[in-house]
Amino acid sequence: MAEAPAQATIGDSEFDRDTVVTPRLPGVYETELSAGWTIISAVNGGYLLAVVGRALAHALPHPDPFTISAHYLTASRPGPAEIRTEVVRTGRTLSTGQASLVQRDDEGREVERLRVLASYGDLDTLPDDVRTSAAPPAIPPYDQCFGPQDAPEVPAMPGDSSLTERLTLKLDPATLGWALGAPSGKGEMRSWFGLADGRDADPLSLLLAVDALPPTAFEMGLMGWVPTVELTVHIRCRPAPGPLRVSVTTRNLAGGFLEEDAEVWDSADRLVAQSRQLARVKLGA
Amino acid sequence: MAEAPAQATIGDSEFDRDTVVTPRLPGVYETELSAGWTIISAVNGGYLLAVVGRALAHALPHPDPFTISAHYLTASRPGPAEIRTEVVRTGRTLSTGQASLVQRDDEGREVERLRVLASYGDLDTLPDDVRTSAAPPAIPPYDQCFGPQDAPEVPAMPGDSSLTERLTLKLDPATLGWALGAPSGKGEMRSWFGLADGRDADPLSLLLAVDALPPTAFEMGLMGWVPTVELTVHIRCRPAPGPLRVSVTTRNLAGGFLEEDAEVWDSADRLVAQSRQLARVKLGA
Repeated sequence: MAEAPAQATIGDSEFDRDTVVTPRLPGVYETELSAGWTIISAVNGGYLLAVVGRALAHALPHPDPFTISAHYLTASRPGPAEIRTEVVRTGRTLSTGQASLVQRDDEGREVERLRVLASYGDLDTLPDDVRTSAAPPAIPPYDQCFGPQDAPEVPAMPGDSSLTERLTLKLDPATLGWALGAPSGKGEMRSWFGLADGRDADPLSLLLAVDALPPTAFEMGLMGWVPTVELTVHIRCRPAPGPLRVSVTTRNLAGGFLEEDAEVWDSADRLVAQSRQLARVKLGA
Repeated sequence: MAEAPAQATIGDSEFDRDTVVTPRLPGVYETELSAGWTIISAVNGGYLLAVVGRALAHALPHPDPFTISAHYLTASRPGPAEIRTEVVRTGRTLSTGQASLVQRDDEGREVERLRVLASYGDLDTLPDDVRTSAAPPAIPPYDQCFGPQDAPEVPAMPGDSSLTERLTLKLDPATLGWALGAPSGKGEMRSWFGLADGRDADPLSLLLAVDALPPTAFEMGLMGWVPTVELTVHIRCRPAPGPLRVSVTTRNLAGGFLEEDAEVWDSADRLVAQSRQLARVKLGA
């Protein structure tokens, strides 16, 4: 009898293998951007942030991103990349660092893909005094939500979207109108979220989770690419094992830009991550 | 008869004089941090962001911050400072830059106060297709709101708080419980906002506006300093002349940190700026 595949764990999973960074010189890491985390033919921004986040975790004396911002400069490609980090300040409870991810273009010239500024701490040292007034999103139970595998007749995401094979998304039907040609008009997207190989969430995979759902623009009737200009994530708590709930909201679509605010809730009903990104959108027809 | 003082204008006002940056070398600017923008004895973070924002506006080929993040490293002091900028990427509609503000400590050693990463564009070139679904805050009319000058018996902010003289704040009474010893317990702060000398708002003064209200922590019963770790601001529209409305919300006070989400609405009911900051707070007592 064939052995069942071992359950992927934090440290031994697709996500971990595809976010490996190898120190090459002090503060300089090499990595291989995987082709497995693309969406609409673009390397996913949250995946890129997680790769850089792992390098910063190596470079800084504190292990966990508390607040991390990325500006996306040029489109990354699967393949080799270098991450150059700088320690900006080290403190007792927080340290700040900066990082650039660069690749070489077809002519061999170096091009910066994204630049990141982040402050790291140790989530395990935070007091457990929790006065969160926010409430988890109203999302139906897992088995009443739908992922791509549940609706094969629904058109797949345009372009190369290997990211969908890395994730287990179960979207709230109330935010799936776009997949049936009837977008709600509301800037909302909600989903249960897990990694397809079963790996539990950790602070670095939360950087992926906040950018892994279909764009809210789809529900606003705007199909197509909605490239991220900047993404800032606050990691507030180590996530408990089990599925996450991700809720994304857009309230200010104007002038060719929109914001996406994401919240990530864990199985213990903790608000473990909050993010906001500024993205470009094509208005008009 | 004495002449009435001339109305301060964009370019000729306290805010403009106190955010002047003088180019010294390519990409390097000197400035003088004013003692007039302190709150609870700290130089206000939004004022610092505006000073650096002005330097970046000089250094980059686009005039307006679209998305700007600052990590606050050490406490700034009134007095001389240097801003070192780097152009990260220039594009047709967006450019990205980075900046460090440094000062010298009592021993003459250089200390970095804040580091900023920002993408700039030109607000005046954005299409006016506005599909904002957010609504302005429910704040009473201006003459039913209160500022420090209206309630002299209310204890002043602790420490040196010259910032309050630079601004005209008229706070929503529903978020003034703290000033009367009866905080509401809700993480909310709302106010009409203007500069005391009458200068209208512009994109750079919006960087101040998002960090200029009393902390939401006051309404949650936590008096004292709530230092900003990181602040990210999206400037989405050039503000119309006239008073602004600022609404700040905290929903995730936990583990010794909280987030403050600010929205700034102008007199034309446009959502002109959105920000989120991560701040430290002392819990327990």
